[in-house]
Amino acid sequence: MTRQLLTIFLVLVTLSSTMGKTEKQAAVKKEKRVPQTLSRGWGDQLIWAQTYEEALFWARSQNKPLMVIFHLDDCPHSQSLKKAFAEDKEIQKLADEDFILLNLVYETTDKHLSPDGQYVPRILFVDPSMTVRADITGRYSNRMYAYEPSDLKLMLSNMQRAKKFLKTEL
Amino acid sequence: MTRQLLTIFLVLVTLSSTMGKTEKQAAVKKEKRVPQTLSRGWGDQLIWAQTYEEALFWARSQNKPLMVIFHLDDCPHSQSLKKAFAEDKEIQKLADEDFILLNLVYETTDKHLSPDGQYVPRILFVDPSMTVRADITGRYSNRMYAYEPSDLKLMLSNMQRAKKFLKTEL
Repeated sequence: MTRQLLTIFLVLVTLSSTMGKTEKQAAVKKEKRVPQTLSRGWGDQLIWAQTYEEALFWARSQNKPLMVIFHLDDCPHSQSLKKAFAEDKEIQKLADEDFILLNLVYETTDKHLSPDGQYVPRILFVDPSMTVRADITGRYSNRMYAYEPSDLKLMLSNMQRAKKFLKTEL
Repeated sequence: MTRQLLTIFLVLVTLSSTMGKTEKQAAVKKEKRVPQTLSRGWGDQLIWAQTYEEALFWARSQNKPLMVIFHLDDCPHSQSLKKAFAEDKEIQKLADEDFILLNLVYETTDKHLSPDGQYVPRILFVDPSMTVRADITGRYSNRMYAYEPSDLKLMLSNMQRAKKFLKTEL
């Protein structure tokens, strides 16, 4: 499964890098690139960690749960979820106030972040005690950590659940 | 007992979150946050990897050397090097065309990236064969991978060295 995904990803990367070269060179001449943001569109006003290690450190030191969003730019499901997520004021507020946030387009080496496989979009919560909350799931039994734009109410209630820590003392 | 503790903790959390709210909201109202960029000022027009794993993957798949810049926002040496780096057209061009780029404000778990300790600013090159080029150093014997703004010529020549791969075939 992982191998297959990796192969597909390799092919995609190779394709896009060879295709991208002429485009890229043309693009440089034609227009200035828009600087990449850490938010990648999931909430420009939120504060995002860059790496998983950094996010874990913040979660522990600020005693906040970590929310990890796996997504891809060329995945329409990721894109539609992102749009809904970024526009949902209640979720943005809760995320801003009570969560350490990380969005990734590349898998980490921590297998706990893929309890039922590597797919996108996929959202995992990590307790400040450094435990991945595999118990906080969406509504799809075949992809337990996937959400659709229509699932934002469930996501909000899952965020509330993640705020109830596994251990009260670290 | 656990329940009680949890309740107390929840009350505390609620308290601190309500107390924190007014301050934060005041800040939000005063000014919109500027979205964080992946470049962090090291070259907004360049394409930056987000994580070390991602950067290694790109280096391997695109067969380009990886340049890792460790820095900190509150380090004046990092800041002055960043300014010089971002303004040097020759370095920016070479970086854009021939390197996979990553800037980090947080250490990775790979000890090879800190051959003589963890300090900032610090620049390490990684060969597409996944070997950290500990042989490519700056001019300071006590901090071999540090550069100052006056060292950009050396940095350029080090980038040229990094382009000569350790192995020509992967």
